[in-house]
Amino acid sequence: MASDESGDRGRQLCSFEKWVTLQQKDLSELLQALTQKPDSPGYDVLLSQLVEKNIQHFQDYIQQRNGLVHDDVSAFFAPTWCTSLENSLLWIAGCRPSLFIRLLYALWGSRVESQLTEFLQGMKTAGDLGVLSAKQLFMVDGLQRKTVGEEEKISSRLASLQEDIADQPIAVIAKDSTGKGEVNSDPDEALDEHGRAMRGILDEADQLRLSTLKELLSILTPFQAVDYLAATKKLHLCMHEWGRKRDHKHGDKL
Amino acid sequence: MASDESGDRGRQLCSFEKWVTLQQKDLSELLQALTQKPDSPGYDVLLSQLVEKNIQHFQDYIQQRNGLVHDDVSAFFAPTWCTSLENSLLWIAGCRPSLFIRLLYALWGSRVESQLTEFLQGMKTAGDLGVLSAKQLFMVDGLQRKTVGEEEKISSRLASLQEDIADQPIAVIAKDSTGKGEVNSDPDEALDEHGRAMRGILDEADQLRLSTLKELLSILTPFQAVDYLAATKKLHLCMHEWGRKRDHKHGDKL
Repeated sequence: MASDESGDRGRQLCSFEKWVTLQQKDLSELLQALTQKPDSPGYDVLLSQLVEKNIQHFQDYIQQRNGLVHDDVSAFFAPTWCTSLENSLLWIAGCRPSLFIRLLYALWGSRVESQLTEFLQGMKTAGDLGVLSAKQLFMVDGLQRKTVGEEEKISSRLASLQEDIADQPIAVIAKDSTGKGEVNSDPDEALDEHGRAMRGILDEADQLRLSTLKELLSILTPFQAVDYLAATKKLHLCMHEWGRKRDHKHGDKL
Repeated sequence: MASDESGDRGRQLCSFEKWVTLQQKDLSELLQALTQKPDSPGYDVLLSQLVEKNIQHFQDYIQQRNGLVHDDVSAFFAPTWCTSLENSLLWIAGCRPSLFIRLLYALWGSRVESQLTEFLQGMKTAGDLGVLSAKQLFMVDGLQRKTVGEEEKISSRLASLQEDIADQPIAVIAKDSTGKGEVNSDPDEALDEHGRAMRGILDEADQLRLSTLKELLSILTPFQAVDYLAATKKLHLCMHEWGRKRDHKHGDKL
């Protein structure tokens, strides 16, 4: 599939590439901030500003992507500019919002495990366990329930929209065709109408991704939030890179 | 994205192209059979054989595709050889099984509507209404409930598998990386293990698609089944063709 850089797909690809580059830049900045001494003056303020900046970048990307959808929403559901590995994990043109929470649990779980080992070996005191407090865990658990519920609602609406293709008017236009795309009625109006509904679902999914991330970060301390954001970016960038290698191995060269 | 014909992706593309060609050939045969006089000797037997043959072709395609998965299951979740329109409608590398039933309702609904108009205008007798009987409708309704339930179970397992990416060991390997794919531990083993689970989900989805189609066709008379199969193929081929036109319009040339 060749991409015409001047077409919609070219602009969409360009926007995604800029987003990946920005993620790399943001990651460097987050990692840099984590190396500073925790008792530096204004450290918490600096970290909070970094978190805000990263949320803003995500929000800007969503808005920019939304502006590039036009009548070509399909392109975002399995982008040709993403790798097969990434596309196999997509939920409505992005990651599942519940994945943000799963990642938090996984990271803190692995940290508790390693710090507990050190603690039992007498290398650390219990106060060093940089884990989530009981109150934080309670709030994350509540967010998870809410997010999974919202995700299920949107998934169910997507299922219904995908089935609509097999309903009137599209299925009947196809039924009256020769089977080679030659039709009596123009399918474009019906497909555009369907595309508008798919765009609505994409908007909702994006808003759920954004609100979940925001709420999750608000539960964490500034240090935890920066540490967590760095991990989300590493996971995203690694999946992109690993996906490229696997596509190359299987005969697709990005 | 360029495709190397000798690689896995080249063989997968080739298999899909053969499948599209076979669908076109099968469609011609189905349409030809529908033009014959209903009282021709052995007509029902001919139609039943055609239905069996079409089911067999679908089964063969699934088996052949399964044989091409190897460790590259991701490629089937958003194939580069399908159009963006088709990919936006995918459910686990194919159509939703419940879509088969939705199509049946849509086609018979539209037929009842047009035949009822003709009947009210005195052009036909009530006996001409070639619609589903009450018994058939009851059976289709039961199949729909069962299919939607199975679909939800598989969807929920897919969601869980997609979230696993954000869990150990993959998320932790990414966390320990530089963020540019350079890692201390090899992610391939974990990604291959994840791929095997995704392949299991693909198998289940394929079996549900096949069993739903088989059960639906067994509810229909041979004539209805051939008529219905022709409609499914027309919808598939039209979506492929319409998707190509839309990709071309937006700057991607297949």
